Amino acid sequence: MKFHHVSGGITAAKGFIAAGIHCGIKKNKKDLSLVFSETPATAAGVYTKNRFQAAPVVVTREHVSNGSARAIICNSGNANACSGQQGISDARRMAEVTAESLNIAVSEVVVSSTGVIGEYLPMDIVEAGIRNIAGQLSPEGGQDAAEAITTTDLVSKETAYKLEIDGKTVTVGGMAKGSGMIHPNMATMLAFVTTDIAITPELLHKALTYTVDRSYNLITVDGDTSTNDMVIVLANGTAGNSIIAEENEDFHRFRTILQRVNTELSQKIVRDGEGATKFLEVTVKHAASFTDGKKLAMGILGSNLVKTAFFGEDANWGRIVSAMGQTDVEFFPERVDVFLGDLQVTRDGQGLRFDEAHAKKVLQEKEISITVDMKMGDEQVTAWGADLSHNYVTINASYRS
Amino acid sequence: MKFHHVSGGITAAKGFIAAGIHCGIKKNKKDLSLVFSETPATAAGVYTKNRFQAAPVVVTREHVSNGSARAIICNSGNANACSGQQGISDARRMAEVTAESLNIAVSEVVVSSTGVIGEYLPMDIVEAGIRNIAGQLSPEGGQDAAEAITTTDLVSKETAYKLEIDGKTVTVGGMAKGSGMIHPNMATMLAFVTTDIAITPELLHKALTYTVDRSYNLITVDGDTSTNDMVIVLANGTAGNSIIAEENEDFHRFRTILQRVNTELSQKIVRDGEGATKFLEVTVKHAASFTDGKKLAMGILGSNLVKTAFFGEDANWGRIVSAMGQTDVEFFPERVDVFLGDLQVTRDGQGLRFDEAHAKKVLQEKEISITVDMKMGDEQVTAWGADLSHNYVTINASYRS
Repeated sequence: MKFHHVSGGITAAKGFIAAGIHCGIKKNKKDLSLVFSETPATAAGVYTKNRFQAAPVVVTREHVSNGSARAIICNSGNANACSGQQGISDARRMAEVTAESLNIAVSEVVVSSTGVIGEYLPMDIVEAGIRNIAGQLSPEGGQDAAEAITTTDLVSKETAYKLEIDGKTVTVGGMAKGSGMIHPNMATMLAFVTTDIAITPELLHKALTYTVDRSYNLITVDGDTSTNDMVIVLANGTAGNSIIAEENEDFHRFRTILQRVNTELSQKIVRDGEGATKFLEVTVKHAASFTDGKKLAMGILGSNLVKTAFFGEDANWGRIVSAMGQTDVEFFPERVDVFLGDLQVTRDGQGLRFDEAHAKKVLQEKEISITVDMKMGDEQVTAWGADLSHNYVTINASYRS
Repeated sequence: MKFHHVSGGITAAKGFIAAGIHCGIKKNKKDLSLVFSETPATAAGVYTKNRFQAAPVVVTREHVSNGSARAIICNSGNANACSGQQGISDARRMAEVTAESLNIAVSEVVVSSTGVIGEYLPMDIVEAGIRNIAGQLSPEGGQDAAEAITTTDLVSKETAYKLEIDGKTVTVGGMAKGSGMIHPNMATMLAFVTTDIAITPELLHKALTYTVDRSYNLITVDGDTSTNDMVIVLANGTAGNSIIAEENEDFHRFRTILQRVNTELSQKIVRDGEGATKFLEVTVKHAASFTDGKKLAMGILGSNLVKTAFFGEDANWGRIVSAMGQTDVEFFPERVDVFLGDLQVTRDGQGLRFDEAHAKKVLQEKEISITVDMKMGDEQVTAWGADLSHNYVTINASYRS
């Protein structure tokens, strides 16, 4: 399948305009982002599974549940989480002011927030900001919008691809924020994707959940899940393809390009993990099922002992097998092979005498691939994570104060 | 219930003798420990749930399954884990040589190992060591035995208590090793308990699993579970009480004293967590069930974000509620209260404006209690953990090399 990278991020797809401004929640940096589809759009979302759901998550869930939305208003600097009834009212008010300014229905607005937990939004500033940003939307606004949703991210994150579907050029673009979950009160992982494909809400939701399971749900920096996480996709049908209403070849082509965008955005999040010195890619081969493979890969990437070993460039395969063993996945330890890069360190559950110089070479790289072969079935799962460094501790020990 | 601390550790109970020696697995430190009941004893054990089970765990499980055992042979310096068929043969051989030296049945021997993973035991040294240590058993050997099972522990860990049961003095004593799970290849948590009470194997097992759930299973340093963990209790009936064969008052008195020993040993393990600068005690009040309370408490103590916040003496209650929210426990966020020491920081799921100077005072202490009130039911669970420090990263980044 031939698809091409294009510029523009969230505004790469036809009919989407955006802006990002400083409205005053943060001291200096951009803190308000707006994305708008010039025509009605179908929408789908997935949300944090944390039982503490921030107010904007509650409101957005309601609005997207009917399968349509055409604006995304997102502030950074304040998460509007653990903010009670006042928080819910404030999130609703953000949607109302956005709807008024864009002359659309309130239920067409996605509301999102990221930043410190437990404080109320400065609503006078936010309302003025929304009225202001609504006048600044443009097809070139993608990069500003991407910057305005960041908090302690070192870089803003966007990407876009195009592909022929049904004889038409379909574009999928997106932006994301998050430095893994390593930024405590600003831990939120947000991703917004726009596309000009024509697709039913049901299939858009299906494509979204499938690709999220294989992207954002396969990354971990420290295993913590924020109260504000959401991934939203809007599809406005401007590409002119016959609407995708079943799981045909067009659907699979679309899902592939959506997967590419989501995988790329999720990897950008891991790479931006502050304190991270290594980008770890774990591939589990021959797992009995996708779920098993995911649990094993995430088990390895989630172990502090594994993470510190990679920070220390230490070929400690014992920690890798032990991390797999403590998941609830059924497998036969006596079958497991482990490779660091191209170097096999474990065969059939037992350590091999390996060339330490070779291991050192693999471990000194910034990007390290770890492959485990379970010899159980036919599934293969790849997941991504970061090491655990002194700097992680420094950042997180002193965040709030 | 009046029970008294006594000295002697694993040899405090009548009829138990022990020794600890250096046999040569480690360079200088004691590395072989033997505990022996002069008369037959009932036995019960709980073992690591890690799918990679070290050879001694496999062999001990077999031996203890009939409810009797009277010797514990344990080496440190080599875990005999991920060692394949050779490892199983070596563990069996340790039991055989111990049985020969003590003139008991092979099935009466508990075998245990702790140390590096993936290397074979130096069996000539181990066999000579076993024959040697069998001649050095004494009622004063408890402390040497406790030293000989340690690896990178900073201190050896033992305790013992006595209590009147059925008009007789019953003693329960034990020793443990482990610095939490923070020592990678030497991550093992071992605990051995001896008592002179008379009790059936079934009720001994029942008391053990109940108390382990409320002690070793309520501590965490970094969430990793070793391949070698075991807790074994031997009861030789020398105290002279009528044998406990039902869950009567005597059973509950015994369980209480066993709980005290196991709780104390497990706390000693957390306090010895290398890199730990804080001892954290989390109490979950009014949980809907014990399981819920445990998951919530362990969720808080297992979060890297919570752990680094306490290392940084940062009153970051948002991380505490978020850590609870990401467990699979059902509760109402809008009911949750959080206290740091005696300072309430969250009421009904929302942050309170609290006195930062007061918070600072609480957080500067070496021991910090965190209390959360779920307002869901009547269960109360307390669990213990440590913070996550720079030193944790240093220790674990460079362990193997």
